[in-house]
Amino acid sequence: MRRSFLATLLALALAGAASAQPSTVRFTPTVGYPTFAKREPVLRVTPGTIVETQTFSKPGDYYDPDKGGPWPGEVGPFYVEGAAAGDTLVVRILRLRPNRDTAVSAVNPNGISALFADGRTRMLNDPPPARRWVWRLDRERNVGVLDLPHSASKRIEIPLAPMLGRVAVAPRGEEAFGGLWPGDFGGNMDAPDIREGATVYLPVFHDGAYFYFGDGHAAQGDGEIVGSGLETTMDVTLQFDVIKGKRIRWPRIEDDRHIMVAGSVRPLVDAFRIAHVEMVEWLVEEYGFEKLEAFQVLSQVGTARVANVVDPNYTVVARFPKALLPPKR
Amino acid sequence: MRRSFLATLLALALAGAASAQPSTVRFTPTVGYPTFAKREPVLRVTPGTIVETQTFSKPGDYYDPDKGGPWPGEVGPFYVEGAAAGDTLVVRILRLRPNRDTAVSAVNPNGISALFADGRTRMLNDPPPARRWVWRLDRERNVGVLDLPHSASKRIEIPLAPMLGRVAVAPRGEEAFGGLWPGDFGGNMDAPDIREGATVYLPVFHDGAYFYFGDGHAAQGDGEIVGSGLETTMDVTLQFDVIKGKRIRWPRIEDDRHIMVAGSVRPLVDAFRIAHVEMVEWLVEEYGFEKLEAFQVLSQVGTARVANVVDPNYTVVARFPKALLPPKR
Amino acid sequence: MRRSFLATLLALALAGAASAQPSTVRFTPTVGYPTFAKREPVLRVTPGTIVETQTFSKPGDYYDPDKGGPWPGEVGPFYVEGAAAGDTLVVRILRLRPNRDTAVSAVNPNGISALFADGRTRMLNDPPPARRWVWRLDRERNVGVLDLPHSASKRIEIPLAPMLGRVAVAPRGEEAFGGLWPGDFGGNMDAPDIREGATVYLPVFHDGAYFYFGDGHAAQGDGEIVGSGLETTMDVTLQFDVIKGKRIRWPRIEDDRHIMVAGSVRPLVDAFRIAHVEMVEWLVEEYGFEKLEAFQVLSQVGTARVANVVDPNYTVVARFPKALLPPKR
Amino acid sequence: MRRSFLATLLALALAGAASAQPSTVRFTPTVGYPTFAKREPVLRVTPGTIVETQTFSKPGDYYDPDKGGPWPGEVGPFYVEGAAAGDTLVVRILRLRPNRDTAVSAVNPNGISALFADGRTRMLNDPPPARRWVWRLDRERNVGVLDLPHSASKRIEIPLAPMLGRVAVAPRGEEAFGGLWPGDFGGNMDAPDIREGATVYLPVFHDGAYFYFGDGHAAQGDGEIVGSGLETTMDVTLQFDVIKGKRIRWPRIEDDRHIMVAGSVRPLVDAFRIAHVEMVEWLVEEYGFEKLEAFQVLSQVGTARVANVVDPNYTVVARFPKALLPPKR
Repeated sequence: MRRSFLATLLALALAGAASAQPSTVRFTPTVGYPTFAKREPVLRVTPGTIVETQTFSKPGDYYDPDKGGPWPGEVGPFYVEGAAAGDTLVVRILRLRPNRDTAVSAVNPNGISALFADGRTRMLNDPPPARRWVWRLDRERNVGVLDLPHSASKRIEIPLAPMLGRVAVAPRGEEAFGGLWPGDFGGNMDAPDIREGATVYLPVFHDGAYFYFGDGHAAQGDGEIVGSGLETTMDVTLQFDVIKGKRIRWPRIEDDRHIMVAGSVRPLVDAFRIAHVEMVEWLVEEYGFEKLEAFQVLSQVGTARVANVVDPNYTVVARFPKALLPPKR
Repeated sequence: MRRSFLATLLALALAGAASAQPSTVRFTPTVGYPTFAKREPVLRVTPGTIVETQTFSKPGDYYDPDKGGPWPGEVGPFYVEGAAAGDTLVVRILRLRPNRDTAVSAVNPNGISALFADGRTRMLNDPPPARRWVWRLDRERNVGVLDLPHSASKRIEIPLAPMLGRVAVAPRGEEAFGGLWPGDFGGNMDAPDIREGATVYLPVFHDGAYFYFGDGHAAQGDGEIVGSGLETTMDVTLQFDVIKGKRIRWPRIEDDRHIMVAGSVRPLVDAFRIAHVEMVEWLVEEYGFEKLEAFQVLSQVGTARVANVVDPNYTVVARFPKALLPPKR
Repeated sequence: MRRSFLATLLALALAGAASAQPSTVRFTPTVGYPTFAKREPVLRVTPGTIVETQTFSKPGDYYDPDKGGPWPGEVGPFYVEGAAAGDTLVVRILRLRPNRDTAVSAVNPNGISALFADGRTRMLNDPPPARRWVWRLDRERNVGVLDLPHSASKRIEIPLAPMLGRVAVAPRGEEAFGGLWPGDFGGNMDAPDIREGATVYLPVFHDGAYFYFGDGHAAQGDGEIVGSGLETTMDVTLQFDVIKGKRIRWPRIEDDRHIMVAGSVRPLVDAFRIAHVEMVEWLVEEYGFEKLEAFQVLSQVGTARVANVVDPNYTVVARFPKALLPPKR
Repeated sequence: MRRSFLATLLALALAGAASAQPSTVRFTPTVGYPTFAKREPVLRVTPGTIVETQTFSKPGDYYDPDKGGPWPGEVGPFYVEGAAAGDTLVVRILRLRPNRDTAVSAVNPNGISALFADGRTRMLNDPPPARRWVWRLDRERNVGVLDLPHSASKRIEIPLAPMLGRVAVAPRGEEAFGGLWPGDFGGNMDAPDIREGATVYLPVFHDGAYFYFGDGHAAQGDGEIVGSGLETTMDVTLQFDVIKGKRIRWPRIEDDRHIMVAGSVRPLVDAFRIAHVEMVEWLVEEYGFEKLEAFQVLSQVGTARVANVVDPNYTVVARFPKALLPPKR
């Protein structure tokens, strides 16, 4: 997945870029969309372009610490020139920082939840009461602080680890999935691995890819069991690229320590299977493993993260340590 | 769960120990059993006792690098004096080291597997071929080495991280589960967190607890997807204790970084739920959290490990970082 | 759900109908759509209207016995005047008959399947071979006939039981689900209970409802395990109505023997739960049961059908026998 | 599976029976056991023997309408002479009739339930309240009557359809499963198809088979969603036989209309898969179908019953109509 300088140059050239010096554009979103779908782009970028932007919010919306109004929607779509159906979109997360001093998280009787019956795992039990928590973000010290009025220790401080809950391309065909959905198009994977420094690879289903992002979490545990992380707005710097002719079936992620695959489906074990089968195929295609040997080795060194168990599809991230990877073919 | 020196003294006294100096016994197993069940104990220990022992093996059994014969069975049961139904058994893993130079792992057409259809997830697909891998254990350098004759990189070296796949008490009532089963009695959880330095807490269903252990893995990835880790024999040093009147519902684990709960059931999401609901209850009972506040905090700082997705019950380990725990009540 | 003649009159009057005599329109589809979504209607009907129509097909498409080309898409949307978000759409299936002499069913390596690993339950096993079967429909004798060249009995005849795999309204918001999806909007439920004589109730998410139908099966077993029924084209006569102010959460079905609820989600047990919880709520709201008593009675007399275990969501139909229903409140 | 008279004679002869006239024995149980396990038999029978017996109960136990005490346990084990590991045990249910005038069913906060969170699908929701219903059995009219004090219709009458929730052999090896468990050994399948007139085939894991039965339900809906049927005691007449050298992997059932397979595991879709894969294999082995053709035909004519979604393993029964079966090979 790492591309040589020459290959990058070539890709940029193919895409019509005038120079190998990546151009940087500033984009301030003025609208958020409720679905991942092919629609009129809000921005067009060429491969190599760096976009300095931010998640979308408007007064009184979901992020308002006092009000907690409606979800503001996702930013996008960005049309990536040169990305054709069957290619792979590359998104480098160069910077990802909360840009306000609060984050919110909530339980509500009609919400999604891993530990209370909800609309998908419906039960006859009485639903949970509504509760909403406003975390204070101390961005200087990189901690989140929450008052716990009903607990013995009246307050807790936790380390922040900003991540993007949602990065997506437009799904295949004419499908349009609501913002809560993850899938093979990416979407609401809620994977803490999608953070500053990581690179996300997404399959391209439509020329231009139609990239979306949103749902910043200042921190989030595995599974996002309460149905939300420390939901807040973020400054986001992304760099886009395209791998021509490279077809992947599920989102891949790479950081300094792991190569990763994010599989999203219910039930949970099938999300686990998708991520791991795709990882085996990755090891075979790019690292020269024979299939059963890849299976054996992954079984001994792989780690898996349960990213979410609350969204319409659950997400599992399979991880293989880079330190143990042989050279790419 | 951590007990003061005074409490330990008291417990030892109650259990009839003559002295606070923990006694150490050496036990060499001569038989392995195929089920976790209440049967005639092979050893009786008092609380505080340290047992230096090892996993069971006999010539030509499963661990034999050339032959790969039958599974030798688990060591136990140990009768722990003073442990009564409703108490909690404490097992400290003081030492856990591979004691041979090879480990084995296999795929077989009739075996268990996360990524091939098997007897529980039955399909009409053709089964996988049989394949057996013998890893070399370089105990000096703490690495496992495997030849990969069919792959481009002909060989891989991985770090070892020895763990016990199985620690158990006798299940409730007259039930007897085969060695592949994990459950609320512990058993074949295949959790890499059960390693040297960790403490395991198990619910006691019968007076004496009837403790078993076995299934050493020199290393194992999350999920144990191929159906086995680096299966090998181990030297094992355990210390036993009892928390009188403390009733837990599922195995708990503690190391220097986390408190943990291991939930085991199918489907996977229900193992995840068990581990996390039990963790919420632990936070409420011992750390003074109100239930919904515990849920909110766990959702933001918890990590989860998929320990196995191959055994008759799947196992998920929920983890809460000790650094963020308030003082115990 | 059964409406008195007076109530029907009233509904028709409210919807602006000039007379209680239902009007009948003939509609011949000229286009099929690949998603269930809000789009420009192909027909507008008033409550009470009877529409004589047919499923969509074009030469060389999926139904062609020789060629087996692309799926032709669903018929719709029909805009139902007077149906507002929050109402219930009533669709009576007055007539449903195959209109050609063949039906097809297939297995393919990249298809959906309950008994072979597929794209959602991904495994490392080799996929199944491609195989396509063309059934002969003897509409006189109401049987389907299939040659079985590889089996001892070279041929089988089975009774036909025509059904509509897909009946739907536009999903909530801006979502658009591909034709394979079932959900709370109906869609590809593949429920054999949706047949001539049955009435389907669908929640209305948008003014006008935007009704779709398609996917005729001359016969289909429970679960549609091979991924398709006896897929064929059909003559379809439907009557539409609206229950104003009646909000349901999931599709309901009624025939001469049962009231039914179709729940669609993965995993299968959650589809089962949705259908049964919604049935309990139906018994409470309309038949005067207290919740736990409804639960007890449903548990003793309910039957459930696994409609599909191959689509992106699985569908379970919960059924309560009409013979045991008390009078409606 | 149907045996000619000659074959029966032969089997009886092989088993040492003196005559083809089946002998009839009367057995009155004096003890009930809490697990399915190999233990000292309470009765020994030869193939062909008819046993007139009854489910076990004692004063004040679970069946007591006023008291509702502990579960009395299962009847058995019966040692069937001539049944060897690898054979198939045949159990014909010649008669099955409730023998008291009441039946009980209950919800309790710590019980099992499909529609309330329970110990396996654990949630943070508050548990249900305790409730216990005593049905009156009108054996003359073959109906069960229940008062519904909290519902508008104060009373309901339902048809009775007596069934045995539990028929089992001793599980493989030294395993012992509690009475709530179903599995490949049969056990608590809670399948309404196991009724008077049906024949049950069970795999034999130990010489003698060690047959158990119990858990009479005067009626039960699909899924047994409340966790119990109309639990009552029954008169039971069984005839035993053995098919030598016939190895089956899961329980099979046959009545006048269907051949059936009962698969038991979690998750539900895997129970569904087991039952249907085993049915395909049955069609291939005994009825001469090629595998994919069996899959295609089963997909179009099969019906499936969700027998239970409350026990430690869920049970699904796959059914193929006898009217469509070709002659046995």
